[in-house]
Amino acid sequence: MTLAFSIYTHSIGPLFFTCFRERETEEERDTEMATLTVSELVPSPVEDAEQLRKAFQGWGTDEKTVISILAHRNSTQRKQIQQAYEELYQESLTKRLESELTGDLEKAVYRWMFNPIEREAVLANIALKKTIDNQVIIEIACVNSPADLLVVKQAYQALYKHSLEEDVAAHTTRDMRRLLTGLVGTYRYNGEEIDTRLAQSEAAILHEAIKSKEHNHEEFIRILTTRSKAQLNATFNRYKDEHGTSISKALLASESANEFVSALRVTVKCIASPLKYYEKVLRNALTKSTDDDTLSRVIVTRAEKDLKEIKDLYLNRTNVPLDQAISKSVSGHYESFLLALLGN
Amino acid sequence: MTLAFSIYTHSIGPLFFTCFRERETEEERDTEMATLTVSELVPSPVEDAEQLRKAFQGWGTDEKTVISILAHRNSTQRKQIQQAYEELYQESLTKRLESELTGDLEKAVYRWMFNPIEREAVLANIALKKTIDNQVIIEIACVNSPADLLVVKQAYQALYKHSLEEDVAAHTTRDMRRLLTGLVGTYRYNGEEIDTRLAQSEAAILHEAIKSKEHNHEEFIRILTTRSKAQLNATFNRYKDEHGTSISKALLASESANEFVSALRVTVKCIASPLKYYEKVLRNALTKSTDDDTLSRVIVTRAEKDLKEIKDLYLNRTNVPLDQAISKSVSGHYESFLLALLGN
Repeated sequence: MTLAFSIYTHSIGPLFFTCFRERETEEERDTEMATLTVSELVPSPVEDAEQLRKAFQGWGTDEKTVISILAHRNSTQRKQIQQAYEELYQESLTKRLESELTGDLEKAVYRWMFNPIEREAVLANIALKKTIDNQVIIEIACVNSPADLLVVKQAYQALYKHSLEEDVAAHTTRDMRRLLTGLVGTYRYNGEEIDTRLAQSEAAILHEAIKSKEHNHEEFIRILTTRSKAQLNATFNRYKDEHGTSISKALLASESANEFVSALRVTVKCIASPLKYYEKVLRNALTKSTDDDTLSRVIVTRAEKDLKEIKDLYLNRTNVPLDQAISKSVSGHYESFLLALLGN
Repeated sequence: MTLAFSIYTHSIGPLFFTCFRERETEEERDTEMATLTVSELVPSPVEDAEQLRKAFQGWGTDEKTVISILAHRNSTQRKQIQQAYEELYQESLTKRLESELTGDLEKAVYRWMFNPIEREAVLANIALKKTIDNQVIIEIACVNSPADLLVVKQAYQALYKHSLEEDVAAHTTRDMRRLLTGLVGTYRYNGEEIDTRLAQSEAAILHEAIKSKEHNHEEFIRILTTRSKAQLNATFNRYKDEHGTSISKALLASESANEFVSALRVTVKCIASPLKYYEKVLRNALTKSTDDDTLSRVIVTRAEKDLKEIKDLYLNRTNVPLDQAISKSVSGHYESFLLALLGN
């Protein structure tokens, strides 16, 4: 994890900070649906830094203390602790955590230490290594609001001196490139206005493409990558009214496993219902052999945003509380950390 | 022109104004290369509004006065005059101008009255009517800095309740759609860093595509639509070093008139050298039968930015001063207006 951690210490340009202020409003709005619990009386950043230092010293690491502090501090507080730690001990807290922790816990804490915007930029970059992880790119492009996606892209440029668009395009080809560069590239209109006639005609185009199994049809990609989310949801609803099934299900039925069709389905779900999408992702990650990478990604990225609602959806769907399902699948300090983020 | 004028009075959202401040810095930087002349002692907006009102009254319009005022006020001053005029006379100055002026002069003044950002948003929208004017879309996407393109897109959304991306995509198909949506969609990295090895390998890809006449090759489109301008210029230079001719000339030689290849050439030129590009556009507009639409578009959009340099390039290339060439091609108040913007 050395490389990934070191990315964190890169400088972020002024543009990023300008837009970060807008983002904070977004975060504030999100906190009602968050699971992260922060007690009203939090120690000062210096006290937290001192406690962490103590936890690192002596034989082994006192993971319990590390978790009890970091899993109960919000993004701003974590940043302040990092600053206090560096001032006190002249070393990077993130680098120290890297050497103190291991395995899934290390990865989860590493992801957690970023602020939400940087984290998505870093996740996007990791998703573009070796075999590209389409799903993560689509999530970032489609779950974020257009304004949030823009600041993620600005953070990405500040960190990697490249645009997200060029890196996505360079790691993909043909239909997948068209879909993914369109999704990350477009600065979607964010208004609520809906053109019902357009929804009707574009639902028909989507239906025609699915019927003829031309999912790579350029009109299919155009509609998904450029229309506003409000307009797309009107189109998806129209499709369902007309054909009695959702586009996502129609795509599933129309073709056997195919990477591109599955990317289309992720796109539709992330736009139509991000919370339901994440609930399903968690369900998949927790059945069969646990997918720890996905599990920690979803818990960490949503804990400060909307994990409470995702948790409710999970319980409704499976009749098992999410924390119980996680306890069954993972163990040790890693389990404690995830459960702490879940609000336990 | 009624419809076009009425667009102007639409409200512009708060996001637009937030980003407008950044843009003003860009404009200030540009003024050294501008041709617009504003005397140091400008009348107050109210005095200007009163003079304009007088020019509108009685038999006919006093175009001379209209031009002497409006062609010598910068964007901020024009806005203040509009506000003063509306407060004094309870009517829109732009609408009044519409009814007072005609023909090419009306169109040029109409374009001039916008601030630079709104103007580009409106020009983009007009370019998407009926047969799409690729050239204007490419200019807006490639001449503007990434940050400026973004504010133009925000202004476009505020005016039309659509994204520029979806409107461009809906008005194009196939290769042209891929090229244009890529150009308007990508938020290019704006850093000066250059990867020389990448420039070498991508120059080779471009060369291969041109040699095999596969200009619609997806790699060709990927490179032009996603790489930073600095990187692209390194690639273009590498191409020239390697093959003794510019990409633009190689494209010209490789194929007979073809709309897509010509769009590629406009893209390359707007990225490689916008000033030379505009000089050539003016040269074409002023030879043969005058292309008034293009002539007024370039003069109006560049007068507050870099028309001085374009003028110098024109003189160097043709041995004829630009104002003289314009005087030969157009006449009357329209001529006076363009020459006033040119600094005469």
